[in-house]
Amino acid sequence: MNFPLITMRDFVNVQKALLDSQGITSLHAVAGLSMGAMQAMEWGNAYPNMVKRIIPVAGHAYSDAHLVGFFDLLAAFIKLDPKWKNGNYYATGQPLDGLREARKLSLLTGVYWQWSQDNFGRAWADGRTSVRRNSFNDKYKIEAGLDAGATSYVQDVDANHFLYRLKATQDYIVGHNGSLADELARIKAPILFIYSPNDLVIPADKVCETGRMIRALRDEAGNRAVVEFAEIEGNAGHVDSIFSISQAAGRIERFLDREPYETPRRRARRRDGCS
Amino acid sequence: MNFPLITMRDFVNVQKALLDSQGITSLHAVAGLSMGAMQAMEWGNAYPNMVKRIIPVAGHAYSDAHLVGFFDLLAAFIKLDPKWKNGNYYATGQPLDGLREARKLSLLTGVYWQWSQDNFGRAWADGRTSVRRNSFNDKYKIEAGLDAGATSYVQDVDANHFLYRLKATQDYIVGHNGSLADELARIKAPILFIYSPNDLVIPADKVCETGRMIRALRDEAGNRAVVEFAEIEGNAGHVDSIFSISQAAGRIERFLDREPYETPRRRARRRDGCS
Repeated sequence: MNFPLITMRDFVNVQKALLDSQGITSLHAVAGLSMGAMQAMEWGNAYPNMVKRIIPVAGHAYSDAHLVGFFDLLAAFIKLDPKWKNGNYYATGQPLDGLREARKLSLLTGVYWQWSQDNFGRAWADGRTSVRRNSFNDKYKIEAGLDAGATSYVQDVDANHFLYRLKATQDYIVGHNGSLADELARIKAPILFIYSPNDLVIPADKVCETGRMIRALRDEAGNRAVVEFAEIEGNAGHVDSIFSISQAAGRIERFLDREPYETPRRRARRRDGCS
Repeated sequence: MNFPLITMRDFVNVQKALLDSQGITSLHAVAGLSMGAMQAMEWGNAYPNMVKRIIPVAGHAYSDAHLVGFFDLLAAFIKLDPKWKNGNYYATGQPLDGLREARKLSLLTGVYWQWSQDNFGRAWADGRTSVRRNSFNDKYKIEAGLDAGATSYVQDVDANHFLYRLKATQDYIVGHNGSLADELARIKAPILFIYSPNDLVIPADKVCETGRMIRALRDEAGNRAVVEFAEIEGNAGHVDSIFSISQAAGRIERFLDREPYETPRRRARRRDGCS
């Protein structure tokens, strides 16, 4: 845990160095999901003349207080595990119990209530159908499902790496440099926000708020680049943006192909998925 | 942890024994918030002839898969704390770290995103205004706020008691006896559901679904007792039902006073807060 803290800007700068090494000087679009959406926004802010289009999926311009608190609690699971030892576990083995619980919480919150209820309901893990049971050891199917998903995930993850990523996500605010309005105004590229109204991690109303803030800043600055919203329907929340991204295929295709600036006619007929 | 599991029905039966000892044979209304709402529903199911009105606030007829999984994770914090020792901590001291994290998670989820953002935003706990910081030890205000709230709470709580309550809540389905429809049909009393559309613990759509299921069962059975919904406005979610319950004062007053049965005219003009 002596490595310096990392930020979304660091991720973007590493990607930029890779592109530089390949002689790539212009990006037709930068797209990403969740933490990838944060990086897509950061790209548009850091290299506004290089990025021609941005597609943040299930993400927006900053981690709000809820996300900061939520990630603190994911980290808490790891830090509670006595095997973590303030990060000095490399000789003695990973804090797998804490890591697994952190992953379970992120899995649970990654889906919407309705999805969990439809897929697990109140069934018992062992398939027996009695309502009353008499032991703390009897697991519900949702508990066993989260356990299984998390157990398979933690095989390939390092706990300290997980903590650095959580911290980078807490610290994310586009530009990492003060005024949100100033940093959003630096983004020149057209943006297509894709989001689910049932997202329990990235609130849809905050995606809309961010998009509208960018629009207002552009109107002031005379920038005609579009800010569009595409809503994904589904009952799975944050991961609808993975499960059901094909719903947005047509919108993405048009966004990638056409001239990405608003004409007066287009502005007049603009309809927000957000509203 | 050798004490038998307890259920919402057990809580209700203890309350019933108290009332019996006082010679009370009829209840004008049973009202409760959250876990209290579960008990109010259970009262109507267990003693349908004794309960004249039910007011569940931020609660409904069963814990859904999301709540079951969420409470598993609250319990996980306590079980991860090495001081828990499978519940045998009475000689050595409470697992306070785990208990505190569990409480932090329930505090965070008890409020809606907007409330956390409005009250804490992305400010630092120490009040300094720089955006970039360089240490895991720098806490955001929301993190410090959750810490403070949880630290004060755990002074008065026993960890094993907390685990029993979590399990009782996971196991809650009205009647605890099989078919949800059969058990809901046993409830004869009029019901006023009070809920917040921003509740992250008890989803509003599940409150509505439960209420409508009861209505449909009553129509079949010829029971004219009303099922009403009162929506609380606010940005605080689950705890809007505490902070802003006065919004429902008029509805509660009329519900407690008038003849709680539907006439054809009343049915015709019924409007759901739910829809």
